Amino acid sequence: MVSIELITVGDELLIGQVIDTNSAWIGRELGRIGAQVDRIVSVHDSAEDIREAVRTALGRADVVVMTGGLGPTKDDITKKTLADLFAGGRMGRDEAVFEHVRRMTAERGMVFNELNQAQALVPEGCTVLPNRVGTAPGMLFVGPAGAASGAEKLLFSLPGVPFEMKELMAEQVIPIIRSRFALRSVVHRTMMTFGLAESAMAERIEPWETALPEGLHLAYLPNARGIRLRLSAYDVEEGQAAEEIERQFVRLGEYIGPYLLGYEPSSVESAVAELLRSRGETLAVAESCTGGSISARITALAGASEYYLGGATTYSNAAKAQLLGVSAADLEQHGAVSEPVARQMAAGALERFGADYAVSTTGIAGPGGGTSEKPVGTVWMALAWRDEAGEVMTSARLMRFSELREQNIERAATHALNMLRLHLLGVSEAFQQTGML
Amino acid sequence: MVSIELITVGDELLIGQVIDTNSAWIGRELGRIGAQVDRIVSVHDSAEDIREAVRTALGRADVVVMTGGLGPTKDDITKKTLADLFAGGRMGRDEAVFEHVRRMTAERGMVFNELNQAQALVPEGCTVLPNRVGTAPGMLFVGPAGAASGAEKLLFSLPGVPFEMKELMAEQVIPIIRSRFALRSVVHRTMMTFGLAESAMAERIEPWETALPEGLHLAYLPNARGIRLRLSAYDVEEGQAAEEIERQFVRLGEYIGPYLLGYEPSSVESAVAELLRSRGETLAVAESCTGGSISARITALAGASEYYLGGATTYSNAAKAQLLGVSAADLEQHGAVSEPVARQMAAGALERFGADYAVSTTGIAGPGGGTSEKPVGTVWMALAWRDEAGEVMTSARLMRFSELREQNIERAATHALNMLRLHLLGVSEAFQQTGML
Repeated sequence: MVSIELITVGDELLIGQVIDTNSAWIGRELGRIGAQVDRIVSVHDSAEDIREAVRTALGRADVVVMTGGLGPTKDDITKKTLADLFAGGRMGRDEAVFEHVRRMTAERGMVFNELNQAQALVPEGCTVLPNRVGTAPGMLFVGPAGAASGAEKLLFSLPGVPFEMKELMAEQVIPIIRSRFALRSVVHRTMMTFGLAESAMAERIEPWETALPEGLHLAYLPNARGIRLRLSAYDVEEGQAAEEIERQFVRLGEYIGPYLLGYEPSSVESAVAELLRSRGETLAVAESCTGGSISARITALAGASEYYLGGATTYSNAAKAQLLGVSAADLEQHGAVSEPVARQMAAGALERFGADYAVSTTGIAGPGGGTSEKPVGTVWMALAWRDEAGEVMTSARLMRFSELREQNIERAATHALNMLRLHLLGVSEAFQQTGML
Repeated sequence: MVSIELITVGDELLIGQVIDTNSAWIGRELGRIGAQVDRIVSVHDSAEDIREAVRTALGRADVVVMTGGLGPTKDDITKKTLADLFAGGRMGRDEAVFEHVRRMTAERGMVFNELNQAQALVPEGCTVLPNRVGTAPGMLFVGPAGAASGAEKLLFSLPGVPFEMKELMAEQVIPIIRSRFALRSVVHRTMMTFGLAESAMAERIEPWETALPEGLHLAYLPNARGIRLRLSAYDVEEGQAAEEIERQFVRLGEYIGPYLLGYEPSSVESAVAELLRSRGETLAVAESCTGGSISARITALAGASEYYLGGATTYSNAAKAQLLGVSAADLEQHGAVSEPVARQMAAGALERFGADYAVSTTGIAGPGGGTSEKPVGTVWMALAWRDEAGEVMTSARLMRFSELREQNIERAATHALNMLRLHLLGVSEAFQQTGML
C-alpha cells in the first residue's frame, strides 16, 4: 500500500485563522485511487519547521504532498526552503512559467512586477507542474533529501489556494502517482440519510449492523444536513469488496426507507434534482428566512437550469406582497412567520415562475426578532404543486430549530427541500409530520 | 513561550470524510491566552501511529493536546494506547465517572451497558478531567513518557466531539495551562481587502511593509473573497503591541485606499451593510448565474432586514422577463448573458422591490453553456440607482473568470457587491474599470 503524508504550511492554520480544508480534500481524492494518507502535519511558515517536517515525512512515507507557502510575498518561504533542501539553495528561471505568469497578469490588466517574475524561479532539478489557473507553479522533487531510507520518494509542493491545489492534484499529482505505484484498493462508500437523529438511526439499523461481515467497517458521521453511514474495506480486491458493500447497502436501504438520500456526494438538493430531472418537471422557490440559500444550494449543482426556473427572496413584507402576491391582510393579521403566509409564498412562486413545484420558508433566523409566541428558530415552510385538475395545492409545516442563525438557515433550507423530496417519492403527509426529527 | 502541539486521532480525518475544525478552534483559543500551537498532527486510529505521535510531540513541546478516539466502540483506541504508554497498560475504574455515566444514560433512557461502564476505566495515575456534557472523560498525563527531555510535560486527551472538546478546553485545559505556565502575549489583528491581486497588493504596500518595526509580522491570506493582511506580534506586552499594530494599520489604510473593507471579520457584504445602514438606504438583488448566493451572503448577516428588501433569482429567460421586466427582444437579440440584460435586471429589481440600489449578475458559471464568443466564466454585472431627479441610472461591467463553477459564482457575487460598495464610497467608474482585478 502506498503511504502518503501531507504537510500543510502556514501560521494561519496554527493560530486557527484558517481551517485546513485542503487536507481532507486531498485525502478523499487519493483514497479514490487506492492511495492512503497516513498522516497530516501542519507547521508554521518557518524554514526550520518545514525542513524538519519534510525530512521526517520522507523518512516514513513513499509520497509527501505539501500545500501552502508558495505565494509571491515575503511571508511565503516553502519554495526557498525546498531549494535549500534539494538543490543547495540554487534556483533558476523556468521560461514556460515566466511566460504563463506574464500572460496571466496581462489578461488581468496587472503590471508584471518583480514579485510575479520571481514566481518563475524554481529550485534546480525539480520538475515544474504547470498551474493553469494561478501564478505559483507546482513542483515535484524526487529523492530522499536527507531521509534515512534510500528508496526513491516523491515530494509534491502545491499552492495552498484551494482551487489551484485541486487543479494541480487532478491534472498532475494524481496521474503521476498512478503511473509510479501499483495501487491496491481501499473501498469506502457512504450512504447519505436525512431526517433521523443518530441514536434513532443506530437503533433502527442495529440488526443489520450486528450481521455485517468481517472486514467491513461502519462509521457514523452526523451533521446538520443528515447522517452519513460509511462502509470501508481496506487493502482488498476492489471488485469483491465493492460488490459486498453494495449488497450490504441494499439491505441497509430497507431499514432506512425514505430517510435514504442516496450515496455520497448525494444531498437533499441532489436527490431533488434527480427526481425532477427524471420527471421532466421544474421548481421555483420563495425564501424569506433562508435568504436565498435554498436557491444557492440548488444552483451550485451544474445543470440546474434544466429543472430550476428561479426564486424570489422576499425579505420585506412589501416584497412578499408585490412579488409573490401574499395577502397584505394575512401579513397584518398572522404576521410574516405564519402558515398562511408560507402557503401563499409557495403558491405565488408556483404561479409566477410557471413551475411544477415551489417551496417556501418564512421564519425567525435570529439572533433578533424572536417573541415568546414565535421564538428565534421558529420556521414555517410550505410546498405548492398542482393537482390533476390543475388546481394549486399546498402543504405546510412548522419547525422549531435552535438559537443559532447559521444553523437555522441551513436546517430550514434542508427541511424545505426535503418536503418536496418526500412529496415526489409519494411519502405520506403523516410520515412527514411524525416520522421526522 | 509555551509550545503546544495538537494530535487529532481518527481515520475519518485522513480519508477526508471529516474536516478537522477542532484544531483551528483550539489554536485560536490557546492564542488568546498567549500559548502557541506549533504543530498539528493527524493520525489513524492505530496504536502504533498514536504512540509514535505522542512520543515525538512530547519530545518537542511543553504541552500536547490530543482529541479523538475516546468513544465507547472498538475502533476508538486512544485511551488504551495512553494506558500502555503511561501506565504499563494498567487501568482502573474512576467512581465519579462511573456514577456520571450511569446518571447520563439513565436520563437519556438508555441501558447502562458494558460499553458505557468501560468508559469509567482510566489509565492508572492519570488525572480525570470531568466531562459534564458527555460520557467520555478527559484525561491529563504528566511526565515524559519516553520523551528525550526529562522536563515535566503535560498531555491532555479529549473527546473529538466538538462541543465536548470545547467544554473541556474551557473548563479544564485552559485553566490548568494558565496555572502552570507563565504566559506571554500573542496579538493578531487582520485587515480585510478586496479588489487587488496579491502581487499588486504587495507592490502597493511595499514601502509600508519594509518600514514595519521589528517584532511585527505580516501575513497575506488571499482567497476568492479578497486578501486578508494579518499583523502578529509574538511574546510581547499586550497593550503596547496592540497599540503599535493599530498605528501601523492606520498607515496601511492610506496605501490601500478603497480596497480596504475593514477589520476581520469584515467582508464585502458587511462593508456594504454598514454603508447602507449608515445612510438609511436599501438594497435588492437580481441574480442569474450567482443563483441566490449574493442574497444568501447578505442574509447570513444578522440584522439584514434593516437594509435588505429581497432578491429575484431569475434562472430562466421567462423569469427574467416576468419578474424583472427584462425585454424579450433584448434577450432574443443579445442573449441572457449581455450588457442590456444585466442593466435591465438591475433596474427591474430596483423598481419592483422599491429599493435604493440593486445589483445584478448574468453569466455562464459552467461547466456547460459556454461558446467561443461567451466562454464559461463570462459574467455581466450591473448596478442600478436613482439620480437626483429620480431617474433610474445603471452601470455595467463585464468580467471573465475561470472554468470552475463554484469559483465563478463566488467571484461574481463578490464583485457585484463590490461595485455597489465602490459606488457608495463615491469611487469613480474609471477606477472601477481599471483599478480592479
